[in-house]
Amino acid sequence: MRQFIVLGHEAPTTADFSLEDLSGAGRLDVLCRCVGAAVFLSHGIREAVRVHLVLADEFTLRFDSNSLRRLYPDERTIAARIRDALDQRDDAIGHQPAAVSPGMALYRFGLDATLDAVASDGTVVQLHADGTPLPEAELPSDPVFVLSDHADFTDSEAALLADRADRRLRVGPETLHADQTITVAHNWLDTAGYSEY
Amino acid sequence: MRQFIVLGHEAPTTADFSLEDLSGAGRLDVLCRCVGAAVFLSHGIREAVRVHLVLADEFTLRFDSNSLRRLYPDERTIAARIRDALDQRDDAIGHQPAAVSPGMALYRFGLDATLDAVASDGTVVQLHADGTPLPEAELPSDPVFVLSDHADFTDSEAALLADRADRRLRVGPETLHADQTITVAHNWLDTAGYSEY
Repeated sequence: MRQFIVLGHEAPTTADFSLEDLSGAGRLDVLCRCVGAAVFLSHGIREAVRVHLVLADEFTLRFDSNSLRRLYPDERTIAARIRDALDQRDDAIGHQPAAVSPGMALYRFGLDATLDAVASDGTVVQLHADGTPLPEAELPSDPVFVLSDHADFTDSEAALLADRADRRLRVGPETLHADQTITVAHNWLDTAGYSEY
Repeated sequence: MRQFIVLGHEAPTTADFSLEDLSGAGRLDVLCRCVGAAVFLSHGIREAVRVHLVLADEFTLRFDSNSLRRLYPDERTIAARIRDALDQRDDAIGHQPAAVSPGMALYRFGLDATLDAVASDGTVVQLHADGTPLPEAELPSDPVFVLSDHADFTDSEAALLADRADRRLRVGPETLHADQTITVAHNWLDTAGYSEY
């Protein structure tokens, strides 16, 4: 399993946004590209990938690649699915998710509870400028990569991750967009032969 | 200089398409993501990158990162720029481009003439499943990567590239989308310290 937690600091938490201006909807375009980078190969969907979009630390929308259906990699299609999910937000109560489209579930909790939910499943990896460069790093088992959107981690997120992350890795000398970082992380695992499902 | 030629086999050649359905506009969403992957870093634009979108082998739209202005990485914004450029297509005559937005130029020619225009500037690299894996490859000088959109290279494109490509490289064991491939190629050059401007 490969997992990616992406923090959308200003992401919408209601369905009240326009598909015609995703950038203006709390940079939802960034989150859509992250989903695309995480789950799609050229002619299909990767196996055993989960993406957790943390929306303004209030909701978390989980995509499970093994059961996703009829999703396409363009930003607008992914955004439309996110909007459909948020339209069901009243059904997300406590740790009971709203069941939305196949392979998607909306939870009413943020980063802390998301880390709780995934931490027992794998190695929490913070992508960080001071981390070990990928080419020098050992392969983590069942990696859970934590990334931020266009904004940096907040002080409280950084403190939480300092406590919870098992590893710190660095994707390269340049600071990439979150979706580009996901692509590089996947390629690193692919090239190293990582296939632990 | 790093250059990327992306073949958009069914891409629009007129401004007559809707920003509300980029996937339906000859998979223009793929080409938009390629532009974003090629020119953007997290908080800015890369130096010395050129992207050549070959539109149905009829027009080629060139983006020069050093002079691009007011471009943003979401698909819709990039598509709007492409549409604006195609609105000026009548000004592209022979090898004289239509001057559109800053850093963009629209030429009335396809892959063959695009290769002619760039080949003297660098090393033409075909990304191919049978190529040398990136981690084992020597760094090319002034690489010109040639990629296809969601469709494979046609027979005539493959024959042309067999003749014109200096190198064949492979990004990894999985077949990635063109934009993902661009991200991996950039990261390979970044990590290897490539900075030949």
